Amino acid sequence: MTAHSPVPALSPKPMLDRVASPADLRALPDHDLPVLAAELRREVIEVVSQTGGHLGSSLGVVELTVALHAVFNTPHDKLIWDVGHQCYPHKILTGRRHRMLTLRQAEGLSGFTKRAESEYDPFGAAHSSTSISAALGFAMAREMGQPVGDTVAVIGDGAITAGMAYEAMNHAGHLGKRLFVILNDNDMSIAPPVGAMQTYLNSIASKGPLATLKAIAEGLEDHLPLPLREGARRARELVGDKSGGGTTLFEKLGFAYLGPVNGHDLPVLLHALRSARTHAEGPVLVHVVTKKGCGYAPAEGADDKYHGVAKFDIATGKQFKTPANAPNYTAVFGQTLTDEAARDPRIVAITAAMPGGTGLDVMQRRFPARVFDVGIAEQHGVTFAAGLAAAGMRPFCAIYSSFLQRGYDQIVHDVALQNLPVRFAIDRAGLVGQDGATHAGAFDVMFLANLPNMTVMAAGDEAELVHMIATAASHDDGPIALRYPRGEGVGVQMPERGEALPIGRGRILREGSDVAILSFGAQLSEALAAATILEAEGISATVADARFAKPLDTALIEQLRRHHRCLITVEQGSTGGFGALVLHHLAQSGWLDKGGPVRTMTLPDRFIDQASPAQMYAWAGLAATDIASTAKTAFLPARSGLVVNLR
Amino acid sequence: MTAHSPVPALSPKPMLDRVASPADLRALPDHDLPVLAAELRREVIEVVSQTGGHLGSSLGVVELTVALHAVFNTPHDKLIWDVGHQCYPHKILTGRRHRMLTLRQAEGLSGFTKRAESEYDPFGAAHSSTSISAALGFAMAREMGQPVGDTVAVIGDGAITAGMAYEAMNHAGHLGKRLFVILNDNDMSIAPPVGAMQTYLNSIASKGPLATLKAIAEGLEDHLPLPLREGARRARELVGDKSGGGTTLFEKLGFAYLGPVNGHDLPVLLHALRSARTHAEGPVLVHVVTKKGCGYAPAEGADDKYHGVAKFDIATGKQFKTPANAPNYTAVFGQTLTDEAARDPRIVAITAAMPGGTGLDVMQRRFPARVFDVGIAEQHGVTFAAGLAAAGMRPFCAIYSSFLQRGYDQIVHDVALQNLPVRFAIDRAGLVGQDGATHAGAFDVMFLANLPNMTVMAAGDEAELVHMIATAASHDDGPIALRYPRGEGVGVQMPERGEALPIGRGRILREGSDVAILSFGAQLSEALAAATILEAEGISATVADARFAKPLDTALIEQLRRHHRCLITVEQGSTGGFGALVLHHLAQSGWLDKGGPVRTMTLPDRFIDQASPAQMYAWAGLAATDIASTAKTAFLPARSGLVVNLR
Repeated sequence: MTAHSPVPALSPKPMLDRVASPADLRALPDHDLPVLAAELRREVIEVVSQTGGHLGSSLGVVELTVALHAVFNTPHDKLIWDVGHQCYPHKILTGRRHRMLTLRQAEGLSGFTKRAESEYDPFGAAHSSTSISAALGFAMAREMGQPVGDTVAVIGDGAITAGMAYEAMNHAGHLGKRLFVILNDNDMSIAPPVGAMQTYLNSIASKGPLATLKAIAEGLEDHLPLPLREGARRARELVGDKSGGGTTLFEKLGFAYLGPVNGHDLPVLLHALRSARTHAEGPVLVHVVTKKGCGYAPAEGADDKYHGVAKFDIATGKQFKTPANAPNYTAVFGQTLTDEAARDPRIVAITAAMPGGTGLDVMQRRFPARVFDVGIAEQHGVTFAAGLAAAGMRPFCAIYSSFLQRGYDQIVHDVALQNLPVRFAIDRAGLVGQDGATHAGAFDVMFLANLPNMTVMAAGDEAELVHMIATAASHDDGPIALRYPRGEGVGVQMPERGEALPIGRGRILREGSDVAILSFGAQLSEALAAATILEAEGISATVADARFAKPLDTALIEQLRRHHRCLITVEQGSTGGFGALVLHHLAQSGWLDKGGPVRTMTLPDRFIDQASPAQMYAWAGLAATDIASTAKTAFLPARSGLVVNLR
Repeated sequence: MTAHSPVPALSPKPMLDRVASPADLRALPDHDLPVLAAELRREVIEVVSQTGGHLGSSLGVVELTVALHAVFNTPHDKLIWDVGHQCYPHKILTGRRHRMLTLRQAEGLSGFTKRAESEYDPFGAAHSSTSISAALGFAMAREMGQPVGDTVAVIGDGAITAGMAYEAMNHAGHLGKRLFVILNDNDMSIAPPVGAMQTYLNSIASKGPLATLKAIAEGLEDHLPLPLREGARRARELVGDKSGGGTTLFEKLGFAYLGPVNGHDLPVLLHALRSARTHAEGPVLVHVVTKKGCGYAPAEGADDKYHGVAKFDIATGKQFKTPANAPNYTAVFGQTLTDEAARDPRIVAITAAMPGGTGLDVMQRRFPARVFDVGIAEQHGVTFAAGLAAAGMRPFCAIYSSFLQRGYDQIVHDVALQNLPVRFAIDRAGLVGQDGATHAGAFDVMFLANLPNMTVMAAGDEAELVHMIATAASHDDGPIALRYPRGEGVGVQMPERGEALPIGRGRILREGSDVAILSFGAQLSEALAAATILEAEGISATVADARFAKPLDTALIEQLRRHHRCLITVEQGSTGGFGALVLHHLAQSGWLDKGGPVRTMTLPDRFIDQASPAQMYAWAGLAATDIASTAKTAFLPARSGLVVNLR
């Protein structure tokens, strides 16, 4: 699988071999399940050592996965994993074991739950905090006669801090129907979670078992080892109020609460889940405490608990990372913003639970008080940034493209409408590789550049990113966004220091005479490669970098239109974005009246599954060869006089 | 102001006359403030009787507004009203009294708080639940040296149920800095609020004053009338736990809690706010209980507490509503969906706290168990609908265009990506009149029609809406959206029953030969009027109704392009939407190569303030005369041979 290590055969797992589906698991006696769990954990480690992926979360839920399939009648009962990156043990148990080595690869298994993959994935995920809403939808469909059994959402302590999860609990508590929420409390999201809710959960968890689901509390305590029983009773008395009603936050929202339960102790876990399933009348929250990375020492010992890993050596835990050829966009952002912040005390940064992923950890180490991790809370994060801007600060709101969708109304209503200078630093723009369609940053140019007051930039390379950060830092006239892709830059010379770009002005990188290729963003290198291909075929291409989707460089566009027989736009995004704005401008200003081919190359009208980014762009029809062939197909008839010569 | 009633002069208010700004108010002795409040209430009633507007919420906060400006040093202290529709007393006290009769009218005062209007509006609003995030932004800017005093968010019990508010409290509790959240608990949002949180708030409020902000509790109780003091102490003991730490949900999130306080008792209110201001070290929540519509009997007696009213007669409370000439789109939706639901038990509906506004109250009365009011929770609402769809139901998710922005990631990630047949019924599409820019449904076509798997329709008239509901009901292949405007239809003949339209097929309403006007949505009547204008000038226009922005009727578009010298698209939405998709198609398929004018008429690249919808569309350049003149300007040079004849 990799040049670094020979492919180790997966080790033998006789118990796991007996489980082709959850029905087989349910046929096993309880005392076999710890053996099954141990084999399952080993299988996960061995698989991910060869594929890379989300290891820590999956290791944390091995016993929980076994217990849930043992207790609930999947797939008739609907088991919905929040985020879905902890689903590897679930995939192995639900008929996908033989395909696990294809994980996160082209035409392989998704790294998340996915409806198209299995009937055991009733609702796919990848973004966080959706599971309770979806499970409640299934539950209410059951109440109205659909063939649905119990519905179970498994949600982490990070994910449950998102407003969406709270909205769902508030609604579920109101409806009062049978529904199971398993709070997988591992005191970690991707980074250690923040927020008052977390402090609260810790305060519960530290008090020991409290089983307060009335009908089952005694049963659970009876099942505890004798020395713990008395402690549990005392703890429950301490936290519960005297009337016998509970006082946890979840109970205030209408849930019965059961927990905390040790998520790695299968007998306790099985008993708790069975009791809950037997006795639940309305919504129940089972608070399960787990350890991210559990059972694999290198993961347990790592700060990030091996949240997401490359391929690695099982014995040492050492990850095989491909050496970089050029600086990573994320690292360039992190360092450049930190440098800007050192010069300008008004610069602050906001992340929604992704300090490392966004590169803000660099600034966080140097200026801890000026980096705000708001938790998984993009709605709040955007408006919080708007408040900071209204009060005179220069906030950089660093959110991945696909997660920024979570704060869309706040961008429109709080930022654009009030013309507040929030800087949106949008990493993971365009196709992102192994995380697949759910994480693709396909839509941000479309949903931002059509808003009044917005300025929208995309970096053509990593040096451009440096200048765009400087541009954003100095832009106090209104909101401004800069987008850049996942991964390495192209290896261009890096500037000592960024310089503010003139707003709404592009640049020409290569002058030609037949066709004009106008690129917006990091597909620029492919546009340049396309020009080389065209040159070999005797077609002379100009390549320009628009830099701005809004405001458009209309002078540049008109110049390209005037001096070339055809115009091709290229972008790493959907329709309705940069190319659409170019077309709108050409139409409105009469530049289409006389004819001459225009082609807008965008992401296609379908979601694209995981593969390498280059492969995904090839599937999308945006590779250099695609650009060259589009240009050629449009240009040749134009040259042969089939359409009007514009010159 | 109206044909129905003579303009009554506003009655004399000697105390209010002394208050030109909050500084004047703060110079008054406390015992004058109840007099001021009484005059302020009368002023609000008199103004709104002449302008219409959000009466109930404003009447509920008269005393609170006076108390807040008396206690806090506005505008240095930042007072942020959530939603902002309760801000009329605030506007009167902050220098805008003389302009109140222009409320919600063209070039008049906004019906919401607005930064551009006053330094006393530090952060504008109109959508709900943003205030705590914004106030926290101001507070943290203060901590970093910006000239900001105390920050105060006033948020209703409906608005605080939104996930965004919870995210903000979670973050504020974590940061632990001084911040005031005033919970304005009137047991109402627009409709009675739903959810477990509400039940919880009621349970606190019913227990009487509990002041648990440690340092001030005794002070508050001392200030209470003697008979209440003992009760307050007892109540606090009942709800508080023995350790002295609080147990309210807010305290679990890291807030000090003070309340509940009678929001119409100025002395108590002043004392509570002053105590809070004096003693607060971190975030404080002051729970104020108010009565929506307070002090005006017709409002207090009405089910909706006169949430939003037309002009009315003060003596009787009778509202002057203009008689309708045609059925209202909202009513057509409500009745038609109810009829469909009667025939199909799988149809269910979801609203986010707007059963009346969306017309779902009709279905709610007939099928109460099949209409889900999720509260102000669009994120959850969309994914809940996706869960229902995944389980085999046929959910109609009825959310106004501008509020649907709140559920955007859920539309992308949970609905479109999984291709689940959620039906989006999008009322208030396009410009909406008096609610202004914040409520304009400008972006939905853009942000929906560029998503894979989506089908997007817009109703050209109210009969089309009936057919589109039938189309959506029968469309199980993926998500589908139908958009329609606020207000009355055009008076077309209504069908007995809707019929499913062929997906992706438009219709031609009027055949001409010179120019083609392709309309998407309810600007259709203007397009038809434009054709009449053009005819009078000797230009023959075809008018077509695209019905679908996605999938496009490419055969129709190509036919229009082939047979006319110019093509004009018209839509009630931003760039990047229908017109952009038409241009993308024409570009990709080579239909631009030969030339011939195309113009895309969209909303302009700016936010448009409130006026009548017709006036707003005229400002937007989308009136019949604008369409005619665009067509003429594009067509005449084409006819005169300045550009290629396409035929």
